[in-house]
Amino acid sequence: MLNLKNFFSPDSIAVIGASPDTKKLVRGRVMSALKNGGYKGKVYPINPSHSEILGYKAYKSLDDLDAKPDLALIAVTADKIPVILGELAKIGCHKAVIYSAGFAEVGEGSKNLDQKLRAAIEKYKITILGPNAVGFFNVAECVAATFSPGINVENPPRVNDGIGRRLVIISQSGGLGFSIYQRAAKRGINVGLVVSTGNEEGITALDVLDQVIDDNMVGCVALYIEQFRDPHRLSRIAKKALQRGIQIIVVKSGRSDASKRAAISHTASLVGNDSAYEGVFNAFGIFRAYDQDEMLDLAAVFTSCPHTKGNKIGIVSISGGGAIWLADACSDAKLILPEFKPKLQKALREFVPPYGGTSNPVDITAQSLHSDGNIRALELIVKAKDVDMLAVVATLSESAMLKKEKPRLKNLARKSNKPIVFCSYTIPNQENLSDLGDCGIPTFSSFVGCAKALKAIYHHNKFRELSDNEKIPVFLPPSLANFKATNTEFDLEGLYKQLKISTPLAKIAFTTEEAITAANQIGYPVALKLQDPNIAHKSASGAIELALKNEGNLRRSFKNITDNTQNKNSPFLVQAMAPLGIDIILGIVRDNDFGPLLMVGMGGTEVEIIRDISFSPVPIGKLAAKKLLHRVSGLRPLLQDSSKSKINISELIEILVNLAQFADSNRKTIEEFEINPLRLFGPGKKALALDGFLRMSSIEEG
Amino acid sequence: MLNLKNFFSPDSIAVIGASPDTKKLVRGRVMSALKNGGYKGKVYPINPSHSEILGYKAYKSLDDLDAKPDLALIAVTADKIPVILGELAKIGCHKAVIYSAGFAEVGEGSKNLDQKLRAAIEKYKITILGPNAVGFFNVAECVAATFSPGINVENPPRVNDGIGRRLVIISQSGGLGFSIYQRAAKRGINVGLVVSTGNEEGITALDVLDQVIDDNMVGCVALYIEQFRDPHRLSRIAKKALQRGIQIIVVKSGRSDASKRAAISHTASLVGNDSAYEGVFNAFGIFRAYDQDEMLDLAAVFTSCPHTKGNKIGIVSISGGGAIWLADACSDAKLILPEFKPKLQKALREFVPPYGGTSNPVDITAQSLHSDGNIRALELIVKAKDVDMLAVVATLSESAMLKKEKPRLKNLARKSNKPIVFCSYTIPNQENLSDLGDCGIPTFSSFVGCAKALKAIYHHNKFRELSDNEKIPVFLPPSLANFKATNTEFDLEGLYKQLKISTPLAKIAFTTEEAITAANQIGYPVALKLQDPNIAHKSASGAIELALKNEGNLRRSFKNITDNTQNKNSPFLVQAMAPLGIDIILGIVRDNDFGPLLMVGMGGTEVEIIRDISFSPVPIGKLAAKKLLHRVSGLRPLLQDSSKSKINISELIEILVNLAQFADSNRKTIEEFEINPLRLFGPGKKALALDGFLRMSSIEEG
Repeated sequence: MLNLKNFFSPDSIAVIGASPDTKKLVRGRVMSALKNGGYKGKVYPINPSHSEILGYKAYKSLDDLDAKPDLALIAVTADKIPVILGELAKIGCHKAVIYSAGFAEVGEGSKNLDQKLRAAIEKYKITILGPNAVGFFNVAECVAATFSPGINVENPPRVNDGIGRRLVIISQSGGLGFSIYQRAAKRGINVGLVVSTGNEEGITALDVLDQVIDDNMVGCVALYIEQFRDPHRLSRIAKKALQRGIQIIVVKSGRSDASKRAAISHTASLVGNDSAYEGVFNAFGIFRAYDQDEMLDLAAVFTSCPHTKGNKIGIVSISGGGAIWLADACSDAKLILPEFKPKLQKALREFVPPYGGTSNPVDITAQSLHSDGNIRALELIVKAKDVDMLAVVATLSESAMLKKEKPRLKNLARKSNKPIVFCSYTIPNQENLSDLGDCGIPTFSSFVGCAKALKAIYHHNKFRELSDNEKIPVFLPPSLANFKATNTEFDLEGLYKQLKISTPLAKIAFTTEEAITAANQIGYPVALKLQDPNIAHKSASGAIELALKNEGNLRRSFKNITDNTQNKNSPFLVQAMAPLGIDIILGIVRDNDFGPLLMVGMGGTEVEIIRDISFSPVPIGKLAAKKLLHRVSGLRPLLQDSSKSKINISELIEILVNLAQFADSNRKTIEEFEINPLRLFGPGKKALALDGFLRMSSIEEG
Repeated sequence: MLNLKNFFSPDSIAVIGASPDTKKLVRGRVMSALKNGGYKGKVYPINPSHSEILGYKAYKSLDDLDAKPDLALIAVTADKIPVILGELAKIGCHKAVIYSAGFAEVGEGSKNLDQKLRAAIEKYKITILGPNAVGFFNVAECVAATFSPGINVENPPRVNDGIGRRLVIISQSGGLGFSIYQRAAKRGINVGLVVSTGNEEGITALDVLDQVIDDNMVGCVALYIEQFRDPHRLSRIAKKALQRGIQIIVVKSGRSDASKRAAISHTASLVGNDSAYEGVFNAFGIFRAYDQDEMLDLAAVFTSCPHTKGNKIGIVSISGGGAIWLADACSDAKLILPEFKPKLQKALREFVPPYGGTSNPVDITAQSLHSDGNIRALELIVKAKDVDMLAVVATLSESAMLKKEKPRLKNLARKSNKPIVFCSYTIPNQENLSDLGDCGIPTFSSFVGCAKALKAIYHHNKFRELSDNEKIPVFLPPSLANFKATNTEFDLEGLYKQLKISTPLAKIAFTTEEAITAANQIGYPVALKLQDPNIAHKSASGAIELALKNEGNLRRSFKNITDNTQNKNSPFLVQAMAPLGIDIILGIVRDNDFGPLLMVGMGGTEVEIIRDISFSPVPIGKLAAKKLLHRVSGLRPLLQDSSKSKINISELIEILVNLAQFADSNRKTIEEFEINPLRLFGPGKKALALDGFLRMSSIEEG
């Protein structure tokens, strides 16, 4: 992990190859961005052909410079960079942004150059951002170290000091990162810092994230990620962000096959396993977004609004239709609109005409808008105990609509500990956006986006509480010392016992006669299963026959399986047939990025077709186990009412927690572990593992 | 149904109560809208206090007018309107827009006024739009008969003549309708007509829809609806729209309890059953939207793009990250990105540098953009046989970016029969939006929105094909002549036979001894069920006992049920126990708006908790039945591979089709019919109806 202290707020900056051509050249655009962005430190342009650039004294070379720049910005061709890093080290500068492309992202041809760059970084101990980065923009401190046209430095965004917290944008694609910035600034969202990390030969996205979550001014971090280079750190970072009330929002690209084709040629990323990311984001309270506007809807509330512990919303609207639309969207987002108490409704009726509504949503009507109906309604509703957040539906397209009520709005938003937001059904005018921004009130132009953002701020707090209360129960997980590389169902009997998972009565048989004796002891009907460690999926290989009712059936099945599998030495398992129930799959898989993951899903032979599965990093406690079960859509209806449920929920949760701890304590040993099916029965009844499979890492790997 | 011929394109317009105050008064704002909107017909302001208003000669009263206005716009207080309608009729004007509020939406107090209005409308045979309407804006013919500030008539939108088709917006909320218009115009979508229908005492939303789908210039209709007043017409209208290639998009408000509270005070609507609407929209190919931008994303493609039969997309991008993002969004929307053939990739490589990608998505890189890389790539890809649609990922925030390639783009879009769209990750500049609009190319600023819109245009065609190929099989449904008002399971045996639905072997018994005799004939285990027509849900009433293994069990159960239900006269059904299987529920319910609806869902006693159900209007054919099954999430995985399925799909489809026809041919007689559970077994095996209930309408209702 790199120490980024002051990287984004340098005292002085050298621009290597600086140019006065601010239109075409990256080296010129960086100069104008620094100047127009209002950078307050010293700027040292380095260029042998100029004595002055944009009013800054220029130097022929780094050698000529009689000062030690705090940060260097480099936009020369890739091949020259290793030498420049040496020159920087010589004068004591150990931080640099490299805009230049032509390294890992180009493919085979540039591998040599890439190695040279890495060697120079290591040799000269330089912390770099890039290469192939669009730079960074420290909006809060006016350091525009970027050539992005998106920052529009001629007309910089308002820095919303003193109200709310800041958004930090971190992106592995510079174009997308600065486009998110542009959209955020336009919406009046208070952006503190934008960083494009490029090829990440030095600073990674997680380095920046790790640093900014310590900043008290930060309320939200939005990331565009193709691959986390060091994902094992994510757990710790995400937990800390949660504790500090900072929401992390991630767009993780590269889910589809086609996007993987593109990623290889893009930032030299190998795109990680999406199910693993999904599971990790869910476990850590990271919001996964799919669109830019969705990201910014969340960023708007997390940078402006106080957190809330409740999900009850009061809605004030000038339009009956708008009120209904937002009420529907809030209900879809599982927010609750309590019907207001008679006393509150009576107070509202003082200025709401008869054809308006006072119950919630409140339709103040256009008539009452003119007599301060909006702010009067808000001032009344904000006091209601059964209201946790407030939304105003308005039309904000005409200019200067809020000038009159602005002082009261500002006062209300500052004093209230409840989120207050505006949602405009017309396109909001820039002036109104700005006035609401001054009040610390975010504005939405989408009903659905508004409802989802309010849900997210409630969910953030709920997740934090759950996380704070979560205990990992003490459980001594089994050791795997005596296991082979691959293991059959019968080999696992002892393991199941230690994991407190029940199995049907069963016996091992090597011959038909042994099988018949076993079946007589167990009682018909029985299942017959070959125990060959090389056969992971018995059904597909013809290594299993079920519901054998008598000796004749058993003899025929013994022969069938022997023929199907050409079996010579492996024994058979004769097992009591389990009653019908609900089949699920439990598993442990090892992900290259995140280590062992616990898997749970709808089970049976069609698990690959149904694909109703969910993952979680390990270990987990009971609350997280329950959440994980809720993410399996086939299980969800069975979890709604535990008293009526068809399954034994508490035992299942315990099994998940134990299995997760087992996975955690054998994280280098288990390659693959699967119980499929684990058959679930009614409440109070023990689940039965009907088939299983364990593959361990070779000792070399362990 | 009203004849709306020329209603929205009148030759002359009288404005009753016209005022020169264009700021505050509705009567003045209508005048300025007409004038500034460029209305070409004659305008007759009616106001005793003025001789001229905004340059139009004013008249003291309608009597003074020596002409017959084609349309009257009325913005006087509600109480005066019945008289004015009489005056209009006297001079031969039979069309009017009523802006005035104060009728049904106010509640009890205004009922009398409402009745007077209705009486006047009938007496004087006047077709009215409103009351409580914001009016209409015929954009295509410059008739701005509205007081909405949303139309911004000082700067009217470009009417995109000759390219593409038009969007019509119909809204029961004027504010929302014109806000959709404002957003559409800003995006450069070609809007033809906006209509606010208000309280719908005359023209309804469906009247307008019915009319505009006959217009060859219309490609898409967007509706904001709280309730269809005459929904039985929707089936015919939607089918016609589909045949004419017009996409209907509906936002149907009032799903949540809270929104229903608001609706009562809003437009005097009783909000319809949402499940019914959902089923009807699905059956008729109507797209249900949840947000304004979602509506407009669809409207953008349906007004600009040719329809397409395929779902294979080619993506060209200037940003690698943007390419991946859109590729992911397209994959999520089930669009396919074929990897381009080597020949095409070779041709692209001529101008795409080594660090760009050519496989699909194509990352042309910023470098190649400057050498016409974008348009060159499009011209090559559009010819590929395995590409049905094209999307360009771009940054369109700088001005005049497309001037150079515009002629080639226009040519490409006009000649190609494939949808071509742009998706900008930065906020698109108005000039670029306009240039692309001139080419007939829609612009998106959301990756997800872009992908969903392209999916919709593909889906529209697929749905149309399915609909064209759908045949309702010939089947003579049973008559209900001999049934009582409520019917028990046993009463229904004959009905099941005619519907070709099997039932387990069963016999009727009035006494314990009769039950024992029956069970001996049937064979244990048996189920025992009381046949009381007043008990619809046997489990909840203790009127059913299952899996009775012997005579002792049967005797005890007989007594239990008799005690539970205080039964005196009703007989018992002794029924063979069915093997375990998958339980579904089938039903017919009569919706007040749409008539009989077929219901299918996951069955059993927990059907109300699980709520995994879907509805369809009747009758249906096999293709629609299959689609209906796919909408039940618990069934979906079982339908994916019919050869491996655990259920007999073909029999189930046949049962649905028969049941739908049964519902259709008894649409006035059946009040409620339910089979729960219908138990499904493997392929080739007949499903069994294990319980059922029928309630018929009283003869008065029929």
